[in-house]
Amino acid sequence: KINGDRLWDSLMEMAKIGPGVAGGNNRQTLTDEDAEGRALFRKWCEDAGCEMGLDTMGNMFARREGTDPEALPVYVGSHLDTQPTGGKYDGVLGVLGGLEIVRSLNDLGIRTKHPIVVTNWTNEEGTRYAPAMLSSGVFAGVHDEEWAKDRVDAKGLKFGDELKRIGWEGEEPVGARKMHAFFELHIEQGPILEAEGKDIGIVTHGQGLSWTQVTITGKDAHTGSTPMPMRKNAGLGMARVLELVEEIALSHAPHAVGAAGHIDIYPNSRNVIPGKAVFTVDFRSPDLSVIEDMVKRLHEGARKICDDMGLEVELEKVGGFDPVEFDAGCVGALRAAAERLGYSHRDIISGAGHDACWINQVAPTAMVMCPCVDGLSHNEAEEISKDWAAAGTDVLFHAVLETAEI
Amino acid sequence: KINGDRLWDSLMEMAKIGPGVAGGNNRQTLTDEDAEGRALFRKWCEDAGCEMGLDTMGNMFARREGTDPEALPVYVGSHLDTQPTGGKYDGVLGVLGGLEIVRSLNDLGIRTKHPIVVTNWTNEEGTRYAPAMLSSGVFAGVHDEEWAKDRVDAKGLKFGDELKRIGWEGEEPVGARKMHAFFELHIEQGPILEAEGKDIGIVTHGQGLSWTQVTITGKDAHTGSTPMPMRKNAGLGMARVLELVEEIALSHAPHAVGAAGHIDIYPNSRNVIPGKAVFTVDFRSPDLSVIEDMVKRLHEGARKICDDMGLEVELEKVGGFDPVEFDAGCVGALRAAAERLGYSHRDIISGAGHDACWINQVAPTAMVMCPCVDGLSHNEAEEISKDWAAAGTDVLFHAVLETAEI
Ligand SMILES: NC(=O)NCCC(=O)O
Ligand SMILES: NC(=O)NCCC(=O)O
Repeated sequence: KINGDRLWDSLMEMAKIGPGVAGGNNRQTLTDEDAEGRALFRKWCEDAGCEMGLDTMGNMFARREGTDPEALPVYVGSHLDTQPTGGKYDGVLGVLGGLEIVRSLNDLGIRTKHPIVVTNWTNEEGTRYAPAMLSSGVFAGVHDEEWAKDRVDAKGLKFGDELKRIGWEGEEPVGARKMHAFFELHIEQGPILEAEGKDIGIVTHGQGLSWTQVTITGKDAHTGSTPMPMRKNAGLGMARVLELVEEIALSHAPHAVGAAGHIDIYPNSRNVIPGKAVFTVDFRSPDLSVIEDMVKRLHEGARKICDDMGLEVELEKVGGFDPVEFDAGCVGALRAAAERLGYSHRDIISGAGHDACWINQVAPTAMVMCPCVDGLSHNEAEEISKDWAAAGTDVLFHAVLETAEI
Repeated sequence: KINGDRLWDSLMEMAKIGPGVAGGNNRQTLTDEDAEGRALFRKWCEDAGCEMGLDTMGNMFARREGTDPEALPVYVGSHLDTQPTGGKYDGVLGVLGGLEIVRSLNDLGIRTKHPIVVTNWTNEEGTRYAPAMLSSGVFAGVHDEEWAKDRVDAKGLKFGDELKRIGWEGEEPVGARKMHAFFELHIEQGPILEAEGKDIGIVTHGQGLSWTQVTITGKDAHTGSTPMPMRKNAGLGMARVLELVEEIALSHAPHAVGAAGHIDIYPNSRNVIPGKAVFTVDFRSPDLSVIEDMVKRLHEGARKICDDMGLEVELEKVGGFDPVEFDAGCVGALRAAAERLGYSHRDIISGAGHDACWINQVAPTAMVMCPCVDGLSHNEAEEISKDWAAAGTDVLFHAVLETAEI
């Protein structure tokens, strides 16, 4: 078994970097805080005898050598970046859980045949730079590297420039590595495991996602002196589209979800009728045809709403991935480990996107989840217990060990 | 008659300070650009032989001495601050129109019995600091000065600190001045005069306003892994309140208007269900009982919407003024001037709030308006013709002259 106390201490230590305002974290990708978190992770990895690799997207790879250096490594990891008001475990548990495996192997003096590589993928969250899982996506060949580096944040700063600025652009070509397998441990971010009292979720599938950025253009005008019939209120148009998003998602419930988390209004002045609204609709389902239906109805419905109001509308896809089925062998290794260790477990579909969803395209991949309190995530109050973290990491440890062979 | 070319040149010169992105202006209150605009206005006033006074709210008073220095001055003016994407004339025409009167009197060698004071009121727009017409409101004793100076902008900067920072806090106690009368020239900001082909609007009344800041609190949560029934989506609650605002305003049409120009969503991340929405509802009507009804229905309706969705809601009044009836004598002087000069004119109700609405509480006050293209204002494309500007200023000139006595 891994050392649950040490794992927890490392989680708490990492959480000191980029503290939030309510007990969680704000360590967004490519900020100074991200750089600080990376430096701490590197130090820990080097202390554990690993050699750190860094690719041109800033993805980090801490390698523990195997007895057969020619054997393809088993990869394990997740991401260290957080939401602006994020939790201490989302992503971080998967990276530090990987580190804990290396530390435990060191403690036990175990050498594996395949090297083990602990990974931190850059910009998983997708808050500062859409889409989410950007750098694992480039690694998997889904996105073009130049395109990825040209993504801009809300201030107009480019991903590529910010990666250079914080000093974490490596020289290794992205995607050059070949993997024997990839495993990711993550908190569930949903309520199922806790509600059913299960220690472990074996992730068989991941639901798919589509992000549509909607831009509605009306006309800035005075809120007092512009007669109601002359108005082109982009904010009101947005309100109607937000109601439509809810209606569309509910029509597929419980097999779909939908919401808009990002909303910007221009010029955002109390006495100016909004001339422009920009917002991003997030639709998800485990069923690709459902996602396609929702996006189609969003396009049609938004156009109808805006036409009726004399508004212009543009809809652009700014992120997405299809539903995923993970590798049966890797899934089996995780399930067998949970069984062997005597943890209660169930199969589960991931509601969130993960780096594993992209890596699944280029290597046998699977994920294991631990519960989180009230299913709450992307919230500073996100919480897990030390035991849950340890159980998930134990299962990860055994599956990795079996796959990396002694 | 005043010199329309000189007036226009000054308007164009002022518009060079704090240019917008689309031909208009971004010279928001208490910014460096505001300071630059003030300095230019002071220079012009001093060149025209006026003495500049400055009060503790940064209100500027350029005095042209009268033949009877004991006689109370006739005040004339408006504001030099603009919206973030504002026009070149909203407010500026009223200030530079006042200056043009002084210049014309100088040209003609006319001395008036009453001194004439051209005024620039600080923070009329209310974008950076709510409420609008803040400093004329303090002047009129409607707002407490300390309270006004404690207003904060979106970045948390205080009005009082910013006024000091730009170097335009005077020593004269605000509101100490007594006025013989106050006149304000302003663009209509609505479509009526242009549609009817009238040169001049004689403002008999101003409609009242109420600003309600609505804060809806839900729960930040993951857009992918949070089941629809567990969501507390503050953004969706906001969408429903925005629809209600439209419905309420339309129920009183054409005697009321309503919209929300200011909307902020937190944490504003694509994959986080909004945990908080803050927005300001702007309701207006010439009829106080209509405003009261609209605000009451907003309170009740927003509570009902939020209760049904498990959201919390707080509603706070952040600005407002009752409908105004301007001084019959001053209105008469303006109407007579328009008549005498042969301009086509009609009585009109101001749809927007103006400094004159507050000053009306402490001095005989009236306003004159010129048309603007398509009724468009609070938009960089706001436009007027040189002839319209000159006609409005001519009427202002004659009414001021009559009131200030030769
Ligand atoms: N796990 C996680 O929160 N990933 C962010 C991408 C997403 O929105 O699903
Ligand atoms: N005239 C003008 O636009 N004033 C700003 C205050 C208001 O919103 O009416």
